[in-house]
Amino acid sequence: MAHPSPDASTTVVVVGAGPSGLMLACNLVRYGIPVVILDDRPDKTSTGKADGMQPKTIETFKQLRLADSLLRNGVRVYDISFWESTENTTLHRKGRQIHYPDHLVGAADPYILLAHQGMIEGVLIEDIEARGVRVTRNSRFIAWVIDTDFPDLWSKVAVRSHSVGSILWIPRERNMTRLYVELSSTEGERVDKTKATPEYVMALARKAMAPFKLEWKSIEWFGNYVVGQRVASHFNDDDMQIFIAGDAGHCHSALAAQGANTSMHDSFNLAWKLNLVCRGLAKRSLLATYEEERRKVAMDLIRFDAEHCNAFEQGEVALAKNFDDNIRFISGVGAEYSSGLLTKIQSDLVTGGALRPGALLAPAKVTRYIDANPVDIQLDIPMLGQFRIYVLVPDILSMKNFLDAFCARLKNPKSILGRESALAQQSYNETPRGKAASDEYVQPQRYTTVSHLFTLSLVTKSSKSDFELSDLPDILQQSRWTLYLDNADEKSCTDKWVGKLNSNEAAIINVRPDGYVGSLSLWTEKEGDKAADWVEEYYASFLT
Amino acid sequence: MAHPSPDASTTVVVVGAGPSGLMLACNLVRYGIPVVILDDRPDKTSTGKADGMQPKTIETFKQLRLADSLLRNGVRVYDISFWESTENTTLHRKGRQIHYPDHLVGAADPYILLAHQGMIEGVLIEDIEARGVRVTRNSRFIAWVIDTDFPDLWSKVAVRSHSVGSILWIPRERNMTRLYVELSSTEGERVDKTKATPEYVMALARKAMAPFKLEWKSIEWFGNYVVGQRVASHFNDDDMQIFIAGDAGHCHSALAAQGANTSMHDSFNLAWKLNLVCRGLAKRSLLATYEEERRKVAMDLIRFDAEHCNAFEQGEVALAKNFDDNIRFISGVGAEYSSGLLTKIQSDLVTGGALRPGALLAPAKVTRYIDANPVDIQLDIPMLGQFRIYVLVPDILSMKNFLDAFCARLKNPKSILGRESALAQQSYNETPRGKAASDEYVQPQRYTTVSHLFTLSLVTKSSKSDFELSDLPDILQQSRWTLYLDNADEKSCTDKWVGKLNSNEAAIINVRPDGYVGSLSLWTEKEGDKAADWVEEYYASFLT
Repeated sequence: MAHPSPDASTTVVVVGAGPSGLMLACNLVRYGIPVVILDDRPDKTSTGKADGMQPKTIETFKQLRLADSLLRNGVRVYDISFWESTENTTLHRKGRQIHYPDHLVGAADPYILLAHQGMIEGVLIEDIEARGVRVTRNSRFIAWVIDTDFPDLWSKVAVRSHSVGSILWIPRERNMTRLYVELSSTEGERVDKTKATPEYVMALARKAMAPFKLEWKSIEWFGNYVVGQRVASHFNDDDMQIFIAGDAGHCHSALAAQGANTSMHDSFNLAWKLNLVCRGLAKRSLLATYEEERRKVAMDLIRFDAEHCNAFEQGEVALAKNFDDNIRFISGVGAEYSSGLLTKIQSDLVTGGALRPGALLAPAKVTRYIDANPVDIQLDIPMLGQFRIYVLVPDILSMKNFLDAFCARLKNPKSILGRESALAQQSYNETPRGKAASDEYVQPQRYTTVSHLFTLSLVTKSSKSDFELSDLPDILQQSRWTLYLDNADEKSCTDKWVGKLNSNEAAIINVRPDGYVGSLSLWTEKEGDKAADWVEEYYASFLT
Repeated sequence: MAHPSPDASTTVVVVGAGPSGLMLACNLVRYGIPVVILDDRPDKTSTGKADGMQPKTIETFKQLRLADSLLRNGVRVYDISFWESTENTTLHRKGRQIHYPDHLVGAADPYILLAHQGMIEGVLIEDIEARGVRVTRNSRFIAWVIDTDFPDLWSKVAVRSHSVGSILWIPRERNMTRLYVELSSTEGERVDKTKATPEYVMALARKAMAPFKLEWKSIEWFGNYVVGQRVASHFNDDDMQIFIAGDAGHCHSALAAQGANTSMHDSFNLAWKLNLVCRGLAKRSLLATYEEERRKVAMDLIRFDAEHCNAFEQGEVALAKNFDDNIRFISGVGAEYSSGLLTKIQSDLVTGGALRPGALLAPAKVTRYIDANPVDIQLDIPMLGQFRIYVLVPDILSMKNFLDAFCARLKNPKSILGRESALAQQSYNETPRGKAASDEYVQPQRYTTVSHLFTLSLVTKSSKSDFELSDLPDILQQSRWTLYLDNADEKSCTDKWVGKLNSNEAAIINVRPDGYVGSLSLWTEKEGDKAADWVEEYYASFLT
């Protein structure tokens, strides 16, 4: 069945204003795509529900320049402690563990940020409203505080009691604490739902926590959650007019704080693709990669979740092992995509660095050339729905010919990127991105000087005194805000990303708007044209 | 002449709602002292004027938890570049220099943060209003952008031209740039004020910057500033009823971005003293330390400023040397107080660390025991007008007797601190601190568990697994949010602050509410009582 092609005036209807729906709406509003947001609740989430932001989700909010208030007001959990009682021992601490060890995860923010789902939704709603789109107004919520002498209240704590089952404690903002109390394991079967009153659950929790006292000063939220794992068989209809994201696509336990994180990243994946297709800049087949990529992650998630629930019931050793095995995935940093239209995995390319197609950029520090500011390179370019083409050239002078040839091709109006950039310019002229007053401090136009489709970025180990801006090809001069000196950290960005390069070598990395590496290759001095061919080929496969 | 003693219901009238007045008002409102703010302008500063926040000022705003929006929206200048033209050479870069080298300054934020004075005032006004006190509403301002091909636009740039004199470039938020153009040196005397039109100054600037082009897209602010240095002979009247702060106290050139910084720190120094005296917790003589301390800094400032202006005229070498010699002072980190009521300099005490009475705390990273969060210790305790008593004990178990004896004395209701803490409790019950909704996320009550006068803090190299909270004396248990593990950085906080300590040693540091070290001493295992005497003696000299 044929459908008329969408255009940049196509209205996208977002059904559901939870984290996933709002993330989608927020991105689309920024990209300039008209949005209507429908939700059956009269207000945003007032309390309870998903609220653990994983390291990758924190990064995503930083990319959107929306993390500040969440970081200021949320609670950061860096470690997890394991407690146990057996028939012969009272409740005692079995061990403590760092939640996201650097050598396993390598996240710039190695903690869970606990912030009420309403706070997360609020931040997205504010941004949407600041860009002139109205959504349901937020509502206020009230506090509760537990009173206990249990000493590990401000770690994440897993308690396994021989008599009562398992409890998971999560510290919360405003002096609150959340308890997950397991209701099924005492008699080996699910507890009757009518029995699961707050009083019953509190009595169970008190019993499990003895000899520590445990009283509730007030209760903000009580929920009864039946654990089940399922993934929708399709994430879109046959015509790719309807897409599902978030809870509608996958359902699982709340134990590992994955739901809202995965849901928002569904939307983060979908939004930029919708933008490019609606604007007529990408082929409709680009949208098929949404299901391919996100259903794979959903499947990974429920597989992990089932193992995680089992491990939680088996106790500390199993749980610790399960964490170790899955910690990259839990953090969100490890969610990876398979080979496909957007992910060009070359089995013959081996680099000495961490980057690989289908995975996220590894965090690295560099110095911005133009103003000598040390910045996190993975965050420095704001989210404008653009690809990023990073050119890593340890020695600018030795690679002058390479850069000249490469840049000449990219700016050629007859090249694929040249032609598509002209179309993009026209499209964004007609339908500009959604603006907010705060954009004045972000200065988005710094990143669209060469193209609205991509930002070009040069990373070099050359010293600031080795060259002047005017020595560079003009499209690199125009990219002066994304020219980085690779001198800000003991281990350089280049070494981290692709390993050591010689002075006559270059690496080129195509990074997707959502921060995933699309493709990656190494080149030598004389291969500037070949490198440009390779870049063009990547974009030709999905641009119109 | 005798005056009735003030009490906590005394209204303080703040005249002038610039940075200094607003900083004073903001602090007093937080402390719970009634304030009336008078200003002859109908609106807050809309443009121009002081706007370089030095590293120490950034720290101060972080202590107030007010830095976020300034950091997000301001421009950070990390380096300074020097340009020159002579009769034989065209304009060329002579050198580049890091502005605040770590080994000279050691600031946690080693840059100038450029944010319009109206933004700084706005942040203070918002906080004052959030605590229920109304001030003049803010107004909007418009933008301008210079158009130039000069390559160092985004560094701070000092240009010395043989024909025209000196120009200082400062990058600004929202793509703006500020130029300071010297008008006196061409003919060796001051230029007639009527000649100093924007057109005249722009022509001078264009001439100095040749061969680079220089055009103005728009002009946001043009000012004509006559450089003069003066310091008021007194900062208060004889009855200590009237105090002057900021521009009213000291006047100097705008070149080194010192004015607003020094002004706000005048207020930061005065506010906590007024609070304690108004509440009847400190002797009136405490207020005399305001002039002693801040007039000394003002004198240091104009001495430096005169040298700095001379160096600016003499050229790059002189200016670079002047920076090197004064960079700690310029950053604000080096403003120090002499021996006095609040500053107990013991010439016989030599430690291997950086701290000394009369100077600020050096930045250091530690791990908060209770929730395993890595924190900046100098910022972690929010500004509540309290002293901080840091007890550094590398080995908790070896120092058990010391801690027991020391803590027993501090909590004794008959001790000076015990008695004064009871009075403080009564005072804050009757006249609480000014609250804002955002306090819910700061949880101020965590820091007043032992006393409203001071926060007690333990810093230890013992491992988390070596002890439990319940092993500690009760006032340390109550101070669980300020119990720090000294394991967060390669160089420990203890080593940084006081040098290596043996396992049977302790250091005690009395830190004033404004972050200055008041006194500092080292003790051994059996000296818990003596250490308590020493602490009591410090507070006895100025508490009632």
